Amino acid sequence: MGALRRKMTRAGLPGLLVTALPDLRYLSGFTGSSAALAVTRRAARLFTDGRYTEQAAEEVAAAEVQIASGSPAIAAVEWLAAWPGVDFAGFDPAHTTVAELSRWREALPSRLRRNFLSPLPVPLVEPLRRVKDEDELALMSEAALMGCKLFEHIVGFIRPGIAEIEVAAELEHRARLLGAEGMSFDTIVASGVRSALPHGHATTARLPRRGFLTLDFGVALKAYRSDMTRTVYLGKPRANERDAYAAVLEAQQAGVAAVASGVSCGAVDEATRSVLRRAGLAEAFTHSTGHGVGLEIHESPRIGAGQTAKLVPGMVVTIEPGIYLAGQFGIRIEDMVAVTRTGGQVLTPAPKALIEL
Amino acid sequence: MGALRRKMTRAGLPGLLVTALPDLRYLSGFTGSSAALAVTRRAARLFTDGRYTEQAAEEVAAAEVQIASGSPAIAAVEWLAAWPGVDFAGFDPAHTTVAELSRWREALPSRLRRNFLSPLPVPLVEPLRRVKDEDELALMSEAALMGCKLFEHIVGFIRPGIAEIEVAAELEHRARLLGAEGMSFDTIVASGVRSALPHGHATTARLPRRGFLTLDFGVALKAYRSDMTRTVYLGKPRANERDAYAAVLEAQQAGVAAVASGVSCGAVDEATRSVLRRAGLAEAFTHSTGHGVGLEIHESPRIGAGQTAKLVPGMVVTIEPGIYLAGQFGIRIEDMVAVTRTGGQVLTPAPKALIEL
Repeated sequence: MGALRRKMTRAGLPGLLVTALPDLRYLSGFTGSSAALAVTRRAARLFTDGRYTEQAAEEVAAAEVQIASGSPAIAAVEWLAAWPGVDFAGFDPAHTTVAELSRWREALPSRLRRNFLSPLPVPLVEPLRRVKDEDELALMSEAALMGCKLFEHIVGFIRPGIAEIEVAAELEHRARLLGAEGMSFDTIVASGVRSALPHGHATTARLPRRGFLTLDFGVALKAYRSDMTRTVYLGKPRANERDAYAAVLEAQQAGVAAVASGVSCGAVDEATRSVLRRAGLAEAFTHSTGHGVGLEIHESPRIGAGQTAKLVPGMVVTIEPGIYLAGQFGIRIEDMVAVTRTGGQVLTPAPKALIEL
Repeated sequence: MGALRRKMTRAGLPGLLVTALPDLRYLSGFTGSSAALAVTRRAARLFTDGRYTEQAAEEVAAAEVQIASGSPAIAAVEWLAAWPGVDFAGFDPAHTTVAELSRWREALPSRLRRNFLSPLPVPLVEPLRRVKDEDELALMSEAALMGCKLFEHIVGFIRPGIAEIEVAAELEHRARLLGAEGMSFDTIVASGVRSALPHGHATTARLPRRGFLTLDFGVALKAYRSDMTRTVYLGKPRANERDAYAAVLEAQQAGVAAVASGVSCGAVDEATRSVLRRAGLAEAFTHSTGHGVGLEIHESPRIGAGQTAKLVPGMVVTIEPGIYLAGQFGIRIEDMVAVTRTGGQVLTPAPKALIEL
């Protein structure tokens, strides 16, 4: 909350309304599904509804809690408007619908309706979330290691003839038993020619006797998400498949090696892309190298071509180059990497040498 | 699309922009995660990005398909603005962020910036989705029956001492194997005193030797969702627990019996509520009786006190009264019911008499 207030002061912002759930979770600790946080330079109050009376009292330390009888966001807006010296308040236009804004404005006295609520020109909370503190890094490392354990388990389960959904079911079942709150996103299990689909969710397709199998999955622990991808081979890879895998692995390792404080995201992207370009696979690499991860599976920064934003210690990003040859096969390898003062620390230390099953 | 066009004509609307994913899925069949649909009185075009070229061609019949190089929504807005006779177009303010609207407006020629995009005063697509056709009802019935199968399976799995998350894991694993695309929402497994939490997601808490266990879950099949709740008892219920269960069951049955074409949602709510009122449990019933369900888990209509909207054949609603006694126990029983010309058809025919395990 201190860092947020410093940002508010710098931006000349007397009041702030926060309604995006991951932002609320980050600033206040509240994990419920309906709340709004109002912040002034001196006070902060979280508004929620009657279902969350106990939970909010337990979870929220950094703000006062008030149970609203109607909409928590409207109660927060009214509270901000009543605060002396708060003549306007910022809101996040990327997480506010046109309908919400119009309801909030209607709840204000007519003299405030037009100008009191002001869209933030740049996000205030998301940049804070980008840099993880020690507690967050410990949680994310735990989630990432759970992902590695799941990979180890699933490698022992995979065999030709079972359906992709059986692999996903086994992975998710095991994740639950290990204590995951849930998966970070729909588990990707893409086998054979389906591995050429960058986002091939598990289907009833059966694993082939011979071919690649891409697994992209993650777990949520206390709302923090992990993300990793491994591509294994069923049977004996052909020479061209082995070469392609080696190229993706080299690209991925180059990306991980490029991660360091002060390096631009574009430079990290170029580190993976240049390896695949030299291997003649530039066009098969159809997406960016990676993304930030944390309370949401996709956060800033984007590790993509031309991105000038620089890495900062405490950021956690994915490095996940991949190639997709339609009708043939696809390969992607992904690690989560924490940016440190001296380089990058891989949070997902599962084996990356080609596994043949 | 015909029904939508009739609504557009009646509303005097020459153009419409659709961006909410369930609406897109409903109108065009497209299941990808990035698209926009532009509809005029004569033409309809779905804009998506390069990742979905093949998929859109396969799935979309009711509209032309165009691959946009940038934002699909902006391409759709530009296409609408270029259409002769379309001097303004509606958009859904409840599913458009303030930031999106401002980007869309900036993409327009300056003379159109202010007035071309106009917020719909009432939703156009959602009311169409409320009434399911035969194909939709068949899918929803299939999803609901899969839920019943899961309940039957899990009843054989439940025993004192296992963790709530083991129950959720088993349920979700079996759902995957039965062919579910995923769960409709985070599975609720709430045992003992935790059954008094209306939305108690599965935790590491262990099932007691004696007490209620509430299971609330559903599966998605081709994007359509099922939803059901059963509360079972571990051990031998006390007399007051048995009485409370009987009251909730009577309320639930009264709600199901009240479902019929032409009946107001408020009257259905009153049917369940009056039973619990007579049993002295009015205050323990802290939510509304139910909600519409379909491509989203919560759709209109809301089956709540004072709701004047009337049921129409083809609607699918939940009937789910519950009571929550903090520190003691909770009980909820929920069916999905399709509104027919003559009454209501229960889609979730799993047993409701109190099961003692």
